[in-house]
Amino acid sequence: MIPAEIIIRKRNGHELSAQEIGFFIEGFTRNTIPDYQMAALAMAIFFRGMTPAETATLVRCMMESGETYDLDDLGLPLVDKHSTGGVGDKISLILAPLAAACGLGVPMVSGRGLGHTGGTLDKLESIPGFRVGLDRDAFREGVRRVGVCMIGQTDSFVPADKKLYALRDVTGTVESIPLITGSILSKKLASGARALVMDVKYGSGAFMDTLEKARALADALEAAGAAMGTPVRCVLSDMGAPLGAAVGNTLEVLESLDLLRGSGPADVRDLTLRLTAEMLVLGRVADSLDEATALATRKLDDGSAMVVFRRMVEYQGGDVSVCDGPTLGWSGPAANGQSRLDLDHIHAGSMSLASGRLVVRAHAHATIAAIDTRAVGMAGIELGAGRLRSDEGIDHGVGILCHVRPGQVVKSGDALFTLIHREGRGVTAAEARLRAALATA
Amino acid sequence: MIPAEIIIRKRNGHELSAQEIGFFIEGFTRNTIPDYQMAALAMAIFFRGMTPAETATLVRCMMESGETYDLDDLGLPLVDKHSTGGVGDKISLILAPLAAACGLGVPMVSGRGLGHTGGTLDKLESIPGFRVGLDRDAFREGVRRVGVCMIGQTDSFVPADKKLYALRDVTGTVESIPLITGSILSKKLASGARALVMDVKYGSGAFMDTLEKARALADALEAAGAAMGTPVRCVLSDMGAPLGAAVGNTLEVLESLDLLRGSGPADVRDLTLRLTAEMLVLGRVADSLDEATALATRKLDDGSAMVVFRRMVEYQGGDVSVCDGPTLGWSGPAANGQSRLDLDHIHAGSMSLASGRLVVRAHAHATIAAIDTRAVGMAGIELGAGRLRSDEGIDHGVGILCHVRPGQVVKSGDALFTLIHREGRGVTAAEARLRAALATA
Repeated sequence: MIPAEIIIRKRNGHELSAQEIGFFIEGFTRNTIPDYQMAALAMAIFFRGMTPAETATLVRCMMESGETYDLDDLGLPLVDKHSTGGVGDKISLILAPLAAACGLGVPMVSGRGLGHTGGTLDKLESIPGFRVGLDRDAFREGVRRVGVCMIGQTDSFVPADKKLYALRDVTGTVESIPLITGSILSKKLASGARALVMDVKYGSGAFMDTLEKARALADALEAAGAAMGTPVRCVLSDMGAPLGAAVGNTLEVLESLDLLRGSGPADVRDLTLRLTAEMLVLGRVADSLDEATALATRKLDDGSAMVVFRRMVEYQGGDVSVCDGPTLGWSGPAANGQSRLDLDHIHAGSMSLASGRLVVRAHAHATIAAIDTRAVGMAGIELGAGRLRSDEGIDHGVGILCHVRPGQVVKSGDALFTLIHREGRGVTAAEARLRAALATA
Repeated sequence: MIPAEIIIRKRNGHELSAQEIGFFIEGFTRNTIPDYQMAALAMAIFFRGMTPAETATLVRCMMESGETYDLDDLGLPLVDKHSTGGVGDKISLILAPLAAACGLGVPMVSGRGLGHTGGTLDKLESIPGFRVGLDRDAFREGVRRVGVCMIGQTDSFVPADKKLYALRDVTGTVESIPLITGSILSKKLASGARALVMDVKYGSGAFMDTLEKARALADALEAAGAAMGTPVRCVLSDMGAPLGAAVGNTLEVLESLDLLRGSGPADVRDLTLRLTAEMLVLGRVADSLDEATALATRKLDDGSAMVVFRRMVEYQGGDVSVCDGPTLGWSGPAANGQSRLDLDHIHAGSMSLASGRLVVRAHAHATIAAIDTRAVGMAGIELGAGRLRSDEGIDHGVGILCHVRPGQVVKSGDALFTLIHREGRGVTAAEARLRAALATA
């Protein structure tokens, strides 16, 4: 097969065969097809799209470009969750142990933060000693023993995605639904999951900024899953404000710990229960969403999820003392939004937390009409909590606490955000971004 | 400026600024912008197109990527002609000396054959000793002394096009009108021409297979010329059959010599006069096309063009004896289609001509409805007359004589084609292609 002819076929709107897609992905992974041909094909796919069958083939070929994990013999219903990325999205830290506590096996291969969105690996590494670089056997043993294991990609894990993602980033081909689908599903299915719940976000903090685009991605993900015989269930969720109060790595672990203890912000609790319930139904642990929600609620509130979290931290070499005292300062039950945040009670234990505090206050009486959530994430980068390039380091101990939500009425002097900063680094730029992020009515 | 952002702007349908286009082309030429980003931009341009202003900027940036020739101080009206490529297209060999005989300066930088189309340089090199690799000073001196000089590109001549053309060829981005326009005009204007006649071909032997596509390219070329302040005049011409009888390098030189002597096929003579007349008007040597046509006809028929051809061959180191005896066998005046081809009189002189002959004859009475002219060019490649890849060698002495035209009635046993082959090489494949190339009614 001739690469240029395959590019031309896609350019002209034809459906590529499984052989053509396989030839291209394998050649690209092995460097026999050069980057410039892959770049041209990616741009042609951006314009022409892919059918569900093509997308499913792309997923499979990318998945098979490297090592895959087969955990079927563990005898667990293997269900994973993936989020398309947001700000303050610490759901996985609560959901994964909760789903395991309910009887699922959760083999979770996660990523790092990039741009305005955070990453699960960075958050976990806020816990001293926590190792995300486990090998295949240790990963498998973690799922077997604890029910959940959360690791990062090894070099041999879906190498086609690693190469293709880096190439798309510099060739203007990130925003292509079939390519996004290929990237997400290839990694998630290579980790051993046999069913997948997708948290597809929309709104100002999401990659898909409109509900319409999020729905199109959700449709593509579910269609590709169906074409592969893998159940994929998408939940559309609003990323028009940060999830919970905490944005930043240690801060988000602290908030997750509060949630695992039954307090914390209601939006995080609600979304966690909703997504976990979908996982339980997919994994046939529950027959209905109502039943699944009841089970998940019970396992969260009776401390079972926290027990699994503690065992996971212990198995992955982390300091289990973080599970005892540390808190962001949430108290009272999270259900029905009764929990209150008191920053005087913030306690990070052995985790890094910067000592600088700056409270950004309202200058006038106003109603918060909207939050540019992406800008909140970018403000976090100014403080050092995130990165613009994948080779940059981050400061786990800095971040932002968000005290307002769209629709909220504030009066002059009310706290809008609290910046947790390291010796003033990035404070001026972050404050400017945060003030600009609020639209008032 | 960030290359990926420029790609995204074009991808999203925005007009690029002169700065953005300049940054991209310069970076690509100097290898600071990698091939994969240029490939993605080229594909985005394929889908989104370019405005006349963008295309003109592209032409200028490509032209300025290397050495340009300035011949203005020669005091000649500098007008060039370019063909989009065809089969049997030997027009330049007759037209360039004819235009010079009429008073123009013709600084012609030509290319080699690739795929089904032939190239002027290959044809000229059929003449023993003829050098197409002259440097800038020798080229200039040729135009000054002879009125015409025909050379190939040096490495420092429009390097952006050399790189971009090679990249487009392997990334499925050849068929983009702004990129074709950039490639053609950048080279033609870098050669020192101040006005340009374009022979834009359509039909089965052309890159633009339909009249509609050829018209779109013609419009883009004229608009880009206008935006640059350079008169560009397009003539649409039919490539639904090979031009003349000869396809192949020595054969086409022989046919050109017959035309310079006043005999030869009428279609080649007519198109030569038509294009030359346009050049003379553009160069203000004549006030009207009628006047220009009369002048060109006189200079062709009185032997003036042949005198210039001979001087050009001499200046460029070729064997001038080819101008005396050698002939394809045309006799009688070409005007009004009176000239007849008699293959018994073919005489190549010092030029290479293979001795093998195979006449492909009609099996039945039929009317030739159409000729797949591209397939005739490909049959020439089978014999060794052309190349599929730019690094392949060719055999100047082989080729095809085409005895039929669309609309012609043939009876069983009539000669359709004569193959001039080297010891049988490619004869079977060529004959099969030629028979398949004829649609009969």
